[in-house]
Amino acid sequence: MQKTQKINDTIMFGNPPSITFSACVGGKKESKSPIANCFDKLYSDNYFGKSSWEKAETYLVNECIDILLKKSNSNMDDIDFIFSGDLENQCTASAFAVRNKPVQYVGLYGACSTMAESLCLASCFTDANQSKKTVCVTSSHFCTAEKQFRTPLDYGGQRTPTAQWTVTASGAVMLEPTVSPPYVRSVTFGRICDYGITDINNMGAAMAPAAASTLLSFFKSTNTTPDDYDCIYTGDLGEIGTKLLSNIMSMNGIKLKNHKDCGLIIYDVKTQDVGVGGSGCGCSASVLSGHIIPMIRSGKLKKVLFMATGALMSPTTVFQKDSIPAIAHLVELSHCL
Amino acid sequence: MQKTQKINDTIMFGNPPSITFSACVGGKKESKSPIANCFDKLYSDNYFGKSSWEKAETYLVNECIDILLKKSNSNMDDIDFIFSGDLENQCTASAFAVRNKPVQYVGLYGACSTMAESLCLASCFTDANQSKKTVCVTSSHFCTAEKQFRTPLDYGGQRTPTAQWTVTASGAVMLEPTVSPPYVRSVTFGRICDYGITDINNMGAAMAPAAASTLLSFFKSTNTTPDDYDCIYTGDLGEIGTKLLSNIMSMNGIKLKNHKDCGLIIYDVKTQDVGVGGSGCGCSASVLSGHIIPMIRSGKLKKVLFMATGALMSPTTVFQKDSIPAIAHLVELSHCL
Repeated sequence: MQKTQKINDTIMFGNPPSITFSACVGGKKESKSPIANCFDKLYSDNYFGKSSWEKAETYLVNECIDILLKKSNSNMDDIDFIFSGDLENQCTASAFAVRNKPVQYVGLYGACSTMAESLCLASCFTDANQSKKTVCVTSSHFCTAEKQFRTPLDYGGQRTPTAQWTVTASGAVMLEPTVSPPYVRSVTFGRICDYGITDINNMGAAMAPAAASTLLSFFKSTNTTPDDYDCIYTGDLGEIGTKLLSNIMSMNGIKLKNHKDCGLIIYDVKTQDVGVGGSGCGCSASVLSGHIIPMIRSGKLKKVLFMATGALMSPTTVFQKDSIPAIAHLVELSHCL
Repeated sequence: MQKTQKINDTIMFGNPPSITFSACVGGKKESKSPIANCFDKLYSDNYFGKSSWEKAETYLVNECIDILLKKSNSNMDDIDFIFSGDLENQCTASAFAVRNKPVQYVGLYGACSTMAESLCLASCFTDANQSKKTVCVTSSHFCTAEKQFRTPLDYGGQRTPTAQWTVTASGAVMLEPTVSPPYVRSVTFGRICDYGITDINNMGAAMAPAAASTLLSFFKSTNTTPDDYDCIYTGDLGEIGTKLLSNIMSMNGIKLKNHKDCGLIIYDVKTQDVGVGGSGCGCSASVLSGHIIPMIRSGKLKKVLFMATGALMSPTTVFQKDSIPAIAHLVELSHCL
């Protein structure tokens, strides 16, 4: 087996970590998802019995971690690290879920790219034998996100045609040293791209250039093309970002094939009134955990790219009329070593 | 040399990374700091010529990175990764400083523990040969922090006697494979502790238990005591948190010696009207970069612990009367291998 090495922006692992377990939990709209059967648990009440949206999201993360631990027959103190982050200010959904748990915590902020960011970091730690059992978890909640990034739901604000719908869900995976598929073959951390988009309701346009940047970099590092992969999953570009990514890749001489966006997998955009698709850390996290990983494990998919995208603005930077930077982190997954 | 291994919560490096360069930039109150001469650049205007506090903080981060690159005779595209985070919502000071720079970015949220968190992560990457040149940078700004966590300055709100003063500064370091002191011998990521403190103006009390937890864990892993270190630096417990840490350590049978808090180093609490001391990501980052690292490099300090603490609440969780979780990450630095 080759030694771990960094070629351009891609770290290729000598000891590819395994994703041994995964779990995901969703809310009300997710219960009607075309992939609803992929969730471990679904709730019809987005408060999850709690007194605030924020407490509800924390509950969601806790539930997801609990299910993951049960599946893996582990206790919390068997886990070396939790890598986590979310969209709430100061990432409180994650931190409050993990407080007083007997586990080391690494707090991240990558907006909707957080699931891929945490997987990239955890994979590096696992490959280097710095961690034996690592949990990556993230979440989003439609109501906390609307309140924080747009307007509180109670205001009844109208949504624009380019808006995406924040998924109410949490997804988690466990990483361990090489044992069984899916294997993480390589990771590519992204660069922050800002193409001057200022429309807070058009995240797809803001994120597509970052997605293209990371994908082009990965193909260059690995000397591969879209043909080499059964599927290239992005999260969450929605309908507009998906078209833009395809256009940008074409302009760079690459025909984007086998591409699917988590934001268009999790909802039926025709019937579920979700604008141009799903978004939020919990979107790509739950699609990865419940839908993609089982297909790689079973061998239905052999080689897959998972690339989550994040828009790194805040309401303050938007008020100040600044443009929206974005980032995309990529994880290469495979059924075989 | 020993192989890299994790003993309890501590990762001990087989290839201890070197902190090859460091830089720090400060604002108005920092110009009167007892360690003002440690800063590379100081400004008398906290707007730094920008139109908003947020843009000012982004400018500060950019300045600090520029100075670091100049010192190290590097270009941005020589750098593998920037690990960064700050206190602004969605960590925009960092992300906006790095946007469109030709470098891979890993966004973190650890509140005021971010400098130690980024150092821990970057050290793991460097030890594992996953990165050759890594920049860790963080910042805080008194005016962005007050506006976001308490009340906008324009309101003229009174400060309580237990309040700390957010430092307006940015600090950055460069990590490279083993070459010269200071060396990072080990890192200990913290666990999230919440002892039920609900007073947003008493961060020291919220953070002291997390500091004690990480420190006790480190002493156990390494079988050492405070006597083994020339200095144990915390950031930023202030006067109250410092006393509490000492008490908790005593209760655990350890007399805390050689301890200094970055929040009490950066300001003269008697004369500078800063409450019980400095705080903010930029506090421990600038004290580390400008004050501690040069002393280890010269051999004036041989063995040092650097542990930054962070309070992980948000204004929303405080409004909802929830308590304040905290975390502390520890970095072991030495002059000799």
